[in-house]
Amino acid sequence: MAVHIALEELGVAYELEAVPIAQGATQQQAYLSINPKGRVPALRLPGETSVLTELPAILTYLARQHPAAGLLPVNDAAGEARCHEWLAWLVGWIHAIGYGEIWRPARFTGIEANHDEIRANGKQVVLDAYAKIEAALADGREWAVPGSYTIVDPFLLVLYAWGMRIGIDMRANYLAWSGHMQRSLARPAVQRVLQREGIALAV
Amino acid sequence: MAVHIALEELGVAYELEAVPIAQGATQQQAYLSINPKGRVPALRLPGETSVLTELPAILTYLARQHPAAGLLPVNDAAGEARCHEWLAWLVGWIHAIGYGEIWRPARFTGIEANHDEIRANGKQVVLDAYAKIEAALADGREWAVPGSYTIVDPFLLVLYAWGMRIGIDMRANYLAWSGHMQRSLARPAVQRVLQREGIALAV
Ligand SMILES: N[C@@H](CCC(=O)N[C@@H](CS)C(=O)NCC(=O)O)C(=O)O
Ligand SMILES: N[C@@H](CCC(=O)N[C@@H](CS)C(=O)NCC(=O)O)C(=O)O
Repeated sequence: MAVHIALEELGVAYELEAVPIAQGATQQQAYLSINPKGRVPALRLPGETSVLTELPAILTYLARQHPAAGLLPVNDAAGEARCHEWLAWLVGWIHAIGYGEIWRPARFTGIEANHDEIRANGKQVVLDAYAKIEAALADGREWAVPGSYTIVDPFLLVLYAWGMRIGIDMRANYLAWSGHMQRSLARPAVQRVLQREGIALAV
Repeated sequence: MAVHIALEELGVAYELEAVPIAQGATQQQAYLSINPKGRVPALRLPGETSVLTELPAILTYLARQHPAAGLLPVNDAAGEARCHEWLAWLVGWIHAIGYGEIWRPARFTGIEANHDEIRANGKQVVLDAYAKIEAALADGREWAVPGSYTIVDPFLLVLYAWGMRIGIDMRANYLAWSGHMQRSLARPAVQRVLQREGIALAV
């Protein structure tokens, strides 16, 4: 969804291929032959045989290919660095460990009897991190990296939606982040993606 | 060590502050007041009060500040994207989950009785990923992203050293990666850093 939003924000031509994770598609041969990591997202690059993987890499690539759209503040070294910092933490900590433990406990231990405890730990990782996200957004900034909507913001929206999915009362607990979510929903690119993916976030 | 190498490769002026992790310094108030995440590396940016964290963000920032050194192929969009892809995977998977489970099992479960099993799983994550690194390097390329030494390569050297530290016979198992290590050791910047940090890698 984050890459999908970035593509719409940039207004570039692209072909979308949905990979139904819930039906196990990421672990089936048809997809593994495209991306041996068995994960989404993956982006086909012009003239390259192997797809580009890893959300931060894909988002950075797209933003840099279309600098005028401003999804990366390419003329502000510190601002760009803050985008990479946010993404590395959101992806490498909250997603990989927090949601990884919650949704894929088998990645962390082979002992199934311990999966519930792994899930509970992942939930706590998510809650601790979400409190930090809220604190960062609560200083009055409009977007994750103050000054403009960047490649960080679509993934913050994904994490907001995932919070709802695991039963966190996002609105009650995260006022500033809920404001961020509303501002995201006001963007036409975001609206097109939510509609196409059949995701409802608004109350 | 990866940031230290990048700084030496770039030839920029910097001040180094060692944070003795083994003595618990990352979790003590003196350091937490600088970086609330309690992790290294962290980079003080000119004119900014909060340090820049996350290895991929720091390396990208430094490389972009000094583009002439070529640590990021800034005029080759796909090449640059491959750097981000490597780093996201090395940092967000091998480091965060593999070595995280091995060295910091408490991050993954509150139940101490399960720590050994978590460590064993982390070791397997590392071994599976190391086989993939070896396969990637075995196509004859000199550096991680073919064509030039980039910000990926210093971290590959760190991961090589960590493999030795956890008792993997790196030379016997990873021929192509050992070649990469030797080429890294031939670089004056790398030699200066290993000497200063008191790390021996050569046989
Ligand atoms: N570090 C990767 C993580 C990608 C990832 O884990 N994606 C999930 C969906 S959000 C996935 O594909 N899961 C399917 C599976 O594990 O089979 C990235 O940044 O792209
Ligand atoms: N995602 C972070 C991870 C940093 C990290 O975990 N660093 C380790 C050392 S390699 C650390 O500071 N550990 C100390 C601790 O956990 O207290 C990054 O890319 O910088």
